[in-house]
Amino acid sequence: MELLKVDSVQRAFEKLAAEVSSWNLNAQRLPLNQSLGKVLHDDIFVEHDIPGFCRSTVDGYAVWAKDTAAANDSIPVLLNLIGQVEMGQKAGLSIVPGQCAEVPTGGMLPEGANAVVMIEYAEAFGTDGIAIHQSVSVGENMVQQGEDALKHSLLLPRGKLIGPQEIGALAAAGIMEVPVFKPLKIAIISTGDELVSPDLTPSQGQIRDINTYALVALAEKTGFEVAHTAVLGDDARLIEEELLKAMKTCDIITISGGSSQGKKDTTREVIDRVSSPGVFTHGMAIKPGKPTILGIDAKSQTLYAGLPGHPVSAMIVFEVLLSHLWRFMTGTPEPMAIPAELTVNVVSSPGKMTCWPVKLTKKESGYLAEPVFGKSGLITTLTKADGYFTVDRHTEGLTSGSQVYVHLF
Amino acid sequence: MELLKVDSVQRAFEKLAAEVSSWNLNAQRLPLNQSLGKVLHDDIFVEHDIPGFCRSTVDGYAVWAKDTAAANDSIPVLLNLIGQVEMGQKAGLSIVPGQCAEVPTGGMLPEGANAVVMIEYAEAFGTDGIAIHQSVSVGENMVQQGEDALKHSLLLPRGKLIGPQEIGALAAAGIMEVPVFKPLKIAIISTGDELVSPDLTPSQGQIRDINTYALVALAEKTGFEVAHTAVLGDDARLIEEELLKAMKTCDIITISGGSSQGKKDTTREVIDRVSSPGVFTHGMAIKPGKPTILGIDAKSQTLYAGLPGHPVSAMIVFEVLLSHLWRFMTGTPEPMAIPAELTVNVVSSPGKMTCWPVKLTKKESGYLAEPVFGKSGLITTLTKADGYFTVDRHTEGLTSGSQVYVHLF
Repeated sequence: MELLKVDSVQRAFEKLAAEVSSWNLNAQRLPLNQSLGKVLHDDIFVEHDIPGFCRSTVDGYAVWAKDTAAANDSIPVLLNLIGQVEMGQKAGLSIVPGQCAEVPTGGMLPEGANAVVMIEYAEAFGTDGIAIHQSVSVGENMVQQGEDALKHSLLLPRGKLIGPQEIGALAAAGIMEVPVFKPLKIAIISTGDELVSPDLTPSQGQIRDINTYALVALAEKTGFEVAHTAVLGDDARLIEEELLKAMKTCDIITISGGSSQGKKDTTREVIDRVSSPGVFTHGMAIKPGKPTILGIDAKSQTLYAGLPGHPVSAMIVFEVLLSHLWRFMTGTPEPMAIPAELTVNVVSSPGKMTCWPVKLTKKESGYLAEPVFGKSGLITTLTKADGYFTVDRHTEGLTSGSQVYVHLF
Repeated sequence: MELLKVDSVQRAFEKLAAEVSSWNLNAQRLPLNQSLGKVLHDDIFVEHDIPGFCRSTVDGYAVWAKDTAAANDSIPVLLNLIGQVEMGQKAGLSIVPGQCAEVPTGGMLPEGANAVVMIEYAEAFGTDGIAIHQSVSVGENMVQQGEDALKHSLLLPRGKLIGPQEIGALAAAGIMEVPVFKPLKIAIISTGDELVSPDLTPSQGQIRDINTYALVALAEKTGFEVAHTAVLGDDARLIEEELLKAMKTCDIITISGGSSQGKKDTTREVIDRVSSPGVFTHGMAIKPGKPTILGIDAKSQTLYAGLPGHPVSAMIVFEVLLSHLWRFMTGTPEPMAIPAELTVNVVSSPGKMTCWPVKLTKKESGYLAEPVFGKSGLITTLTKADGYFTVDRHTEGLTSGSQVYVHLF
């Protein structure tokens, strides 16, 4: 048996990123209202000034600012009202010194006007006079043409994750078809003679397949397109057949399970058989999750990831390698991790990055991170943990009260 | 004109919650793999012990713990190997003192065994002997039947937001159809004579409709089903017709726009015309967002929300009232807010809850929250802000360096 060449998480990720550096991620154009949660493939520029005209930000009177210089609470300035701007219409008016025009909030300023006096500081005087009780400076209570966004300026950068406010900004710029990254296609394969489909009642010695469901959900949440799933026994020939099938449609193939000594070798051997140059990482210095295998087939551009069988370990390794890879390739910032105060001392495994599943609770100021322990931890960890934090491989442990950053699942 | 009866945000929400307290949220059963992001409608219990049998957590030998009491590095205990447990099979063996059986990680323990010795501490001796070099205690390297989750115990509570790990836990319990809250149906209506559809180039005096797109995305992100959208001019008759149409299918109707004095009255009047008892909040002590209107039609169980025209204000009011209401009604915890350090002094409006859009940046320890200012703030605020924090109405402001909690958009 070949000895495991264990990589640090950082080293494994660097090798992974190097292996896929030649991959071209494609763009697809989605209708604006279907782009929520996707990632921008291109920089988006504004085609026209926003707003396209000088606009009042209040209900009031458009004026020539200088006219109001002497106005105050007790002594008003009297201006001649020449008309009213209609909402959504070209102003169609122009004022000269001594004149003003009524404008609604959001209405277009008439030519010649360079400020707006709020309605609260004005009163009608005679038939066509307005008494102004406030002095305004140039540009007051209005937005200049292009002040929000100048023609040809950058609105949103490539790599931006599209949330409701980005949808709003894209609408403002008239982008009805959004260029987003086309998701990579992923296959989720679970292996193990002990696995039965969750819709069956396990017999003695059997357990339900958790990983397929949890990893499919995590892959979808990350932004991958799940194009293939399978649950197989520990049979090298069946696994090989499934990999060859999945390679035809998928960019990434994950195989979870195989945590016992013999099975680890099977996963490795099968990946090596179907791919070239094959496995480049076997074993990663992470706890939980050591039995991680990474391989590549250069010709078909297929990435293989052998993940641990334990669901929480499989999810964490998926996160730190594959979800991170997707964000790295698309230039998307990592999701915000929550700073929290550790409630107990934790001791790490030397030389390994240790991941601690934790439950977060709000305290008066900030959050508490309480590790979710458990011998096998399976269900308990799944249902109680909000996320996890990591302790790097050079740190022996952390004391209660330390600040940690919790990555939410 | 009737004077605005301004409510605090808390008071407005309390009235809102009271008005809908008689509403029954329905359940719907979704296939497990379509339940990501939904909210559990029922407590979920485990039907069978998990695991359903005593299970090894290592590759090794199942033993009667007492047999190993005298074993150590130099002096082994010799046990008689009676067979091997196959993965995924009933053990089909039983051991008595002096015997052991080989078990793989995850394999079922034979009857009579109450601990497992790791393969690393055992070696073959003769044809059917195993020399054990380690003493193990009862229960070591194994999981008891039901240790993860006992039959009839609570797996996940009503109100739980379903993430990848909940999907995994539900799979473990064999829940293939998940009872989730059926989303409330919402209508998003934007009004304003100045609005044109984003696919058109605005003429002078016009701007593109942002709110429909941003609020639809926010509503979907919250968990509502958007069942109706419309963009209308400032025409009371048209708005009334649209409300009557939307009432037939929707539980919640939002009408954004109408930030000028005259229009605010229109929205209020129209809501009062189509509903009974009608408007119960007109004006909310929030900045931005004061022109907020809430009304109810008791008979049809329809909620009306008049939102500000400014997109960021509309989004924030939507968040603090409607998204919050959905989580309140379903019992879902609020999303984690990010603790961050304020970069500048901010001065609040006395008597109002003030919401500050901010950009978050990582610093060495924690995050910095930098307010996104801007005269009209429109596009800039939309594209630069990661979320917002609030200053309550009794606080005059916050100094640079204060800790704030940022709610992500």
